[in-house]
Amino acid sequence: MTLDASWFTEIAPGEGIALSLRGARKLHAEQTPFQTIEIYETETFGTLMVIDGCVMLTDRDNFVYHEMLVHPALFSHAAPRDVLIVGGGDCGTLREVLRHPEVASVVQAEMDERVTRLAEQYFPELCAANADARARFYFGDGIQWVKAAPAASLDVILIDSTDPVGAAEGLFAAPFYAECLRALRTDGLMAQQSESPLLHAQLIRNMHTEFRQVGFSDVKTLTFPQVTYPSGWWSATLARKQGEIAGFRRLDAENRLFPTRYYNAAIHAAAFALPTFLRDALFR
Amino acid sequence: MTLDASWFTEIAPGEGIALSLRGARKLHAEQTPFQTIEIYETETFGTLMVIDGCVMLTDRDNFVYHEMLVHPALFSHAAPRDVLIVGGGDCGTLREVLRHPEVASVVQAEMDERVTRLAEQYFPELCAANADARARFYFGDGIQWVKAAPAASLDVILIDSTDPVGAAEGLFAAPFYAECLRALRTDGLMAQQSESPLLHAQLIRNMHTEFRQVGFSDVKTLTFPQVTYPSGWWSATLARKQGEIAGFRRLDAENRLFPTRYYNAAIHAAAFALPTFLRDALFR
Repeated sequence: MTLDASWFTEIAPGEGIALSLRGARKLHAEQTPFQTIEIYETETFGTLMVIDGCVMLTDRDNFVYHEMLVHPALFSHAAPRDVLIVGGGDCGTLREVLRHPEVASVVQAEMDERVTRLAEQYFPELCAANADARARFYFGDGIQWVKAAPAASLDVILIDSTDPVGAAEGLFAAPFYAECLRALRTDGLMAQQSESPLLHAQLIRNMHTEFRQVGFSDVKTLTFPQVTYPSGWWSATLARKQGEIAGFRRLDAENRLFPTRYYNAAIHAAAFALPTFLRDALFR
Repeated sequence: MTLDASWFTEIAPGEGIALSLRGARKLHAEQTPFQTIEIYETETFGTLMVIDGCVMLTDRDNFVYHEMLVHPALFSHAAPRDVLIVGGGDCGTLREVLRHPEVASVVQAEMDERVTRLAEQYFPELCAANADARARFYFGDGIQWVKAAPAASLDVILIDSTDPVGAAEGLFAAPFYAECLRALRTDGLMAQQSESPLLHAQLIRNMHTEFRQVGFSDVKTLTFPQVTYPSGWWSATLARKQGEIAGFRRLDAENRLFPTRYYNAAIHAAAFALPTFLRDALFR
């Protein structure tokens, strides 16, 4: 079968796979100082944002990614009060963070303001919490923001970035992790999107090595399905400054007063179970 | 971006999504009395078998599906001795079943002998156990095989079929489940591939309803990633004749003497955790 011009296709060139979505009508395209952003309306996945040819999010399946980057990290912290998001310009991560009543302040440090402006226009439901008084927006270099942050001033850092090439490459490197470690309080932790467990096990292994090298005391990876990312399977990697990542506020997770569509307490515990091949890739 | 003729593409027409694999060189194609079977060599996923335009398996990712259809079911049974596979012509499920030393006899009841003959030729590693003295091959209607089976003669029935259309439709229906119930011993259970949790939640719900209607006492669904199936996420649904599907032979799973690449005891427990939206779809 062949695909005509009514399909949007993302090719993962190194992997020899491609995903296509039907009925992709282009609503908007622009070149920002940082990247090319396109917005499409698809037939079955709703609105689609594409950056430099890669699917960033769709209406239909972004809930899994956003919930699994945020809630395992926040329920793994005893009292997450001050949170930083690096990247996350579509504001979906911010919205999930703000669902936690313990959170007193969140900064979203996104390089490209246009991502956020387009999200406000095309993904209004992700931006529903942007007016929350606890939220602050910084448009600029997240690495510089962390460098300038006072020591021990943050409880949770969430890295919601694009793939580790170009501008995002520095977010997957030891010098940045060292700055995060410094900015975190003793019981602080970070969570970073860490690509596909099947396709990028070596990247995840390197992340574990570098988190530990700079002094994080525990590192764990969780996985979740993500239909519109290459391989349909994705991961987040958590690193804790002191102590282990083991257990979480299970009662709070079970009795949470906000809705989730993927996350729940059973999923939290289950997501950290690693397939044999990934356990071997990470720890052998 | 566009895909040229060097890509194999499977369109999931009802879902508006398509997956493509690069460098698909056709090695074989034939029309059997039942279906069209094609074999390709791909660049990054190895050999690919396609039936009626749908990906059946690739070298690279079939291990997840085969392990997750077989091992949770077999380790959930106290002593799986007599096993039936309905479908499973590629012999990957058979190979995983035969890894269990408790198994004394396995019948693979596949409609289309050509699937097995082509698997022997193009997927020899999946057929590595075909000469095992415990294995028997029946090429014909699996539904009739179950009808003809003596009552209470089987411990585990595994339904490893194509999608629930055409010949496989009868495998997703109450009359077949009733025959399976009859053929199972009191502590017997079955496991059936049950499509994508994201795309086919209604089908899975119907399966739960029908398993219970015919008298199965417990039904549970597990999920796993499956890169080359639509949505990249798949499921199996287990049904037990009497008693609950809860707990499993954890020590045996941990100390298993055979290799697995996805399955392990932690994954077994974790796979049954249901995302909130699926829990709602199945049980509300």
